[in-house]
Amino acid sequence: MPLRVVLSHTSHPGNIGAAARAMKTMGFDDLVLVAPRHFPDPDATAMAAGAADVLQAARVVDTLEAAIAECTLAVGFSARGRDLSHAPAALRGLAPEILATAEAGTVALVFGNETSGLSNDELLRCQRLAHIPANPAYSSLNLAAAVQVACYELAATSGMHALPASGAPDAATGEDIEGFFAHLESAVHQTGFADPQNPGRFMERMRRLFARSGLERAEVKLLRGMLGAFEKKMRR
Amino acid sequence: MPLRVVLSHTSHPGNIGAAARAMKTMGFDDLVLVAPRHFPDPDATAMAAGAADVLQAARVVDTLEAAIAECTLAVGFSARGRDLSHAPAALRGLAPEILATAEAGTVALVFGNETSGLSNDELLRCQRLAHIPANPAYSSLNLAAAVQVACYELAATSGMHALPASGAPDAATGEDIEGFFAHLESAVHQTGFADPQNPGRFMERMRRLFARSGLERAEVKLLRGMLGAFEKKMRR
Repeated sequence: MPLRVVLSHTSHPGNIGAAARAMKTMGFDDLVLVAPRHFPDPDATAMAAGAADVLQAARVVDTLEAAIAECTLAVGFSARGRDLSHAPAALRGLAPEILATAEAGTVALVFGNETSGLSNDELLRCQRLAHIPANPAYSSLNLAAAVQVACYELAATSGMHALPASGAPDAATGEDIEGFFAHLESAVHQTGFADPQNPGRFMERMRRLFARSGLERAEVKLLRGMLGAFEKKMRR
Repeated sequence: MPLRVVLSHTSHPGNIGAAARAMKTMGFDDLVLVAPRHFPDPDATAMAAGAADVLQAARVVDTLEAAIAECTLAVGFSARGRDLSHAPAALRGLAPEILATAEAGTVALVFGNETSGLSNDELLRCQRLAHIPANPAYSSLNLAAAVQVACYELAATSGMHALPASGAPDAATGEDIEGFFAHLESAVHQTGFADPQNPGRFMERMRRLFARSGLERAEVKLLRGMLGAFEKKMRR
């Protein structure tokens, strides 16, 4: 997906490295730095961990205008509402538009300086203003954390990463399950347990519980093995 | 929202501080640490920034069992699929259930060690396994970044969707559930059932099954009543 992260006037190089790592975990690698205070820097490299390639390929430019020159949409991130700029929208609400736009061209996600954020001039160069909904009493996400959330939101909404494959378990059939319930009822009957006034109640609750869990064949076998063991012991 | 973040066996105290900051930005403050290597620690305090209060209120315990004793749902975070444990689900797909359950009780989000993740024993104590969909070529989110994403996902989902009126019915707590498993193990032990070569196997499967179903208090009572009846009958 042609998604670019633009970090403008970043103060701490460690944040650049951590942002590169955050991007790569979500499958993005196009990083542009606007006038970083220190770059390249050993702190950036250390914090990038396994994303040194993203850092190495990062372009450094002088202005936001240069960073987004070939982008078809620039989304500025801001924790505050602003007077002169567009009204901010929640990141999640913007995600579908960002993804649709990224099908035809590059979309830039633009993050400002750690302390002061994006300048008004920078915000005016962005077509959208995104807001990560946060605690009003403490909305100060770390820069790399904001990049992580933005990249996660877009990756998750797009569904681009499949879950790791898990072996489909061999599910029990209706016959297996009825066999188990009959066995359970018969075994419990031998103990005298369950309200004699209302004998169906116990089995109803058990049916409800195992309906919720679902049952695998191997589990039915185990449970019936256990019931058989109880029965055998009781007969002695 | 009664949401707890549990960090188990964290190696680097800076990650604990950064996780506290991530939690607070999303409006959460209940942090429990299971056997952290170093805590309290100046690195944790420095990385917490404005979330020193979350750090200060954090509880330190020895085991995951203690950390989730009063929780009605524990969600383990894992980057991998596992053979014997529950199949992982994408975080976003689990969010509605987590939010609904949190209306009636505390939900724990459980994160393992930076290098090795959660142990199999720890995963078996979680009723759900959550996966943050990531780049298959580099899925290594920093610990605090994973906490940030999890808290963001839940905060964002709860803000966007009206929650169902009532959550889980009187759900069993970690203590209830451990009491049941201990009773089950002891009762089955008396029958001689379960492979003597591999005694843990049966209980693992049972933990997995009941993790999937979830348990209500009334169901635990019923199941233990049934076990007691078997025991009584076997003694005759």
